[in-house]
Amino acid sequence: MTAWALLLEYDGTAFCGWQRQRGQPSLQARLEQAAARLNGGAPVACVAAGRTDAGVHASGQVAMLSLPDRYGPGQVRDGLNFHLRPDRLVVVAAAVAPHGWHPRFSAVGRGYEYRISNRRARPALGLNRVWHVERPLDADAMNEAGQHLVGLHDFTSFRASSCQAKSPVRTLEVLRVAREGDDVVIHAEARSFLHHQVRNMAGTLKLVGEGRWRAEQVAAALAGRARRLAGPTAPPDGLILLGVSYDTDPFLDC
Amino acid sequence: MTAWALLLEYDGTAFCGWQRQRGQPSLQARLEQAAARLNGGAPVACVAAGRTDAGVHASGQVAMLSLPDRYGPGQVRDGLNFHLRPDRLVVVAAAVAPHGWHPRFSAVGRGYEYRISNRRARPALGLNRVWHVERPLDADAMNEAGQHLVGLHDFTSFRASSCQAKSPVRTLEVLRVAREGDDVVIHAEARSFLHHQVRNMAGTLKLVGEGRWRAEQVAAALAGRARRLAGPTAPPDGLILLGVSYDTDPFLDC
Repeated sequence: MTAWALLLEYDGTAFCGWQRQRGQPSLQARLEQAAARLNGGAPVACVAAGRTDAGVHASGQVAMLSLPDRYGPGQVRDGLNFHLRPDRLVVVAAAVAPHGWHPRFSAVGRGYEYRISNRRARPALGLNRVWHVERPLDADAMNEAGQHLVGLHDFTSFRASSCQAKSPVRTLEVLRVAREGDDVVIHAEARSFLHHQVRNMAGTLKLVGEGRWRAEQVAAALAGRARRLAGPTAPPDGLILLGVSYDTDPFLDC
Repeated sequence: MTAWALLLEYDGTAFCGWQRQRGQPSLQARLEQAAARLNGGAPVACVAAGRTDAGVHASGQVAMLSLPDRYGPGQVRDGLNFHLRPDRLVVVAAAVAPHGWHPRFSAVGRGYEYRISNRRARPALGLNRVWHVERPLDADAMNEAGQHLVGLHDFTSFRASSCQAKSPVRTLEVLRVAREGDDVVIHAEARSFLHHQVRNMAGTLKLVGEGRWRAEQVAAALAGRARRLAGPTAPPDGLILLGVSYDTDPFLDC
């Protein structure tokens, strides 16, 4: 068998999230089902860099699975894509996984974007791809407040109560908020994130953008280390996993 | 009655195009139907800056219609949007139309973008919003060839045989082709365009990008003034009307 690194793009709207759930359409099950077709019908197990939630999108998810040795990279990509039709999940690239490489544990960086459509009219083009917030947001104030979250912190206030990570300590490398026309776009980078961390940061910074919270309250919510101190979880629609980075990029030659 | 200028956003996938067609879901009919609800059920006629084709999108279409004097701009926008739900057509802004203003005849500029997803995997996130071209395209060569089309020309070779414009002469102000990751994006600006002009230019430049045509052949196709000399019409999915400009922007205060 050959272990393959896969670069995946998906629209999460119709899926229950990455992780397999009985009777629900998960991205993992869909990919494993397609892979089984290339494995003589025998089951194939797949792991991903991050288990995105229901409704969350990806332009650069990374996963790994093993297939019989007879396929080349183009055949793995095209063969999986053939069996993934017509779902909104595709393999953008496939490469032989480097020895000892793991999509999740070898990752050294993850980038997410959270997009808010900040206008009165509901989204027509951005349907299912943005959080629609009608009240005008001050993106500069959100950006300033967000800088309190950058660095090494205990992010207990910003992780889901169901989060299974052993430690709530993470290093947020980048948090940028900028207006792009009617949209307010939050860009976040870290080695890894806690469950719901980006959506909880987005939901909290939205309070700042509306003028309901001051930047210092974000700092205080962080310092207080309790989920109830931060803002609500922003909806999944606005979130997209842009990419995962590794010390050696498995897709360099793709 | 008050004449209103409307800024519209729509996903054209489920529509037969702007123009009303019996038994078909047109954007015009949908908007007129919503407007009638604000007019006591009486019919309302609507004109647009450009009659986009089936499957073509807009982030900045401009239209005009008249409603009873009792509404303010916010009420027109919100009232129409209420009755447009759940279709992927929204009024982003409404403003009282300047005296003598016409969305089509007062327009002094139109901007379009044509987006090609240039990779092997079909689009998952870009579904219905791009033209999927698998063969690698040379965006620089396309850009260079496109410069032959810039300026005042007889665009007979690039207009639909069904085009009803009296003159095939237009001035193409801007034609830019650039790669953005896996996408090749064509940006075009002119006072006005002929029917299918952008899609015919895109279909022709794609031949250059694939290396099947040289830049000089684009110039020759233009000079020959016959539709059969230029390339095929690119599909509507990749096209979006970005905006329409006027000497006085009706939406300046929105």
